[in-house]
Amino acid sequence: MTIVEPKPGPDKIRLLRDCLIFRSLDEAARQELAARAYFKRYAAKEPIFQMGSPGQSMMAIAAGVVRITAPMESGREIILADLPAGEVFGEVAMLDGKERSAAATALTNCELLVLERRDVVALIRHDADAALRLLELLCARLRRSEERMTEIAFLEVPARLARTLIRAAADAAERSRVQPVKLSLAQGELARMIGSSRENVNRCLKEWQRHGLIDLKDGWLIVLDPQGLEAHANR
Amino acid sequence: MTIVEPKPGPDKIRLLRDCLIFRSLDEAARQELAARAYFKRYAAKEPIFQMGSPGQSMMAIAAGVVRITAPMESGREIILADLPAGEVFGEVAMLDGKERSAAATALTNCELLVLERRDVVALIRHDADAALRLLELLCARLRRSEERMTEIAFLEVPARLARTLIRAAADAAERSRVQPVKLSLAQGELARMIGSSRENVNRCLKEWQRHGLIDLKDGWLIVLDPQGLEAHANR
Repeated sequence: MTIVEPKPGPDKIRLLRDCLIFRSLDEAARQELAARAYFKRYAAKEPIFQMGSPGQSMMAIAAGVVRITAPMESGREIILADLPAGEVFGEVAMLDGKERSAAATALTNCELLVLERRDVVALIRHDADAALRLLELLCARLRRSEERMTEIAFLEVPARLARTLIRAAADAAERSRVQPVKLSLAQGELARMIGSSRENVNRCLKEWQRHGLIDLKDGWLIVLDPQGLEAHANR
Repeated sequence: MTIVEPKPGPDKIRLLRDCLIFRSLDEAARQELAARAYFKRYAAKEPIFQMGSPGQSMMAIAAGVVRITAPMESGREIILADLPAGEVFGEVAMLDGKERSAAATALTNCELLVLERRDVVALIRHDADAALRLLELLCARLRRSEERMTEIAFLEVPARLARTLIRAAADAAERSRVQPVKLSLAQGELARMIGSSRENVNRCLKEWQRHGLIDLKDGWLIVLDPQGLEAHANR
């Protein structure tokens, strides 16, 4: 991890403008927040923070992808999210002052803008719209978490896997127009996303490949028939 | 459901003072919010709102217990929480303006204080501490939801059941000093709390009864040996 020398402001201001939760800030508030924020760089696979560690800051992703996981005592883990540039993370411990509720790791090389609790709290006090955006962010996280919990509780592995692929394909389609959508997700990663085993995921993907719903090629998972996956998602 | 005639203010103000998220309000803000809030009464088993319905208000529980559930398309459901007096619910849809993310039902007769979105937003704009309390509430909900998700994904039924009983016993012990703790939880309810079947829960409870960890008597589930349950929780 490298703490980067303070850069000229425009980079930071542009990043804050691209972040949904800071988009509503007026220019003065954005400049003030940017002046107090600093960049950190992480190499691919480098841990950013551990679950259970103290956390007084949140991070906005300037470049790269950050993986959020919840490890269990048993050493197994569930992948909660892979967050691209423009997203933020670490807001829970920053806001409630407790331990980190999950672990964060740089999935690729990453550049992060770090915002300290005192500066975000000052912003909330100054700008109610920022508080409302943060509240909406947490509402979205909570909706997503409860949806996944009921999926894991009630759906069989194929339906959970189909839903995860449909969501990942929709996210990828937002970022690029290339069709068909190619996903860079290993079978072990998919297993950790749906709370199942690599073997179960492999069995399911092989069957869908035989039926022409997906293809597995050169390490890519290619979504050929999203409607066909939809049918499995609702079983 | 009955909408109750505006009552003299003190009841509402006292309830807001007992609610963790409104405790930090100054007296003027509390009086203003109380003046705009109104009581609704529900009979036991009456639905308060359905998942997917529009929701422009949140509720503070003045009396009774409210059950929050997430129903699946299949008709099965998971019990997310049983909330006693002093707790609030319905804040997610109120804050993000989307559909209700879960269903709420009166588990007992209930009296609720209803707070409309426009009044809560006005409060957030007026009082940054209220915004911070709401942010902390959502952080707590998110931590709880992710903890349950990883439990459902990785733990077997006995460990999930033991953790649920330990938490329910700790909550009950906070409200009453009677020992041993007696829980009024049917086996079907426990199954819907841990995302399993009544049969699995029954098999597990019978075994724990034989080993003296719990007793099942007159519809009560009596926790005799919390330490013994602890051992099952960590398997």
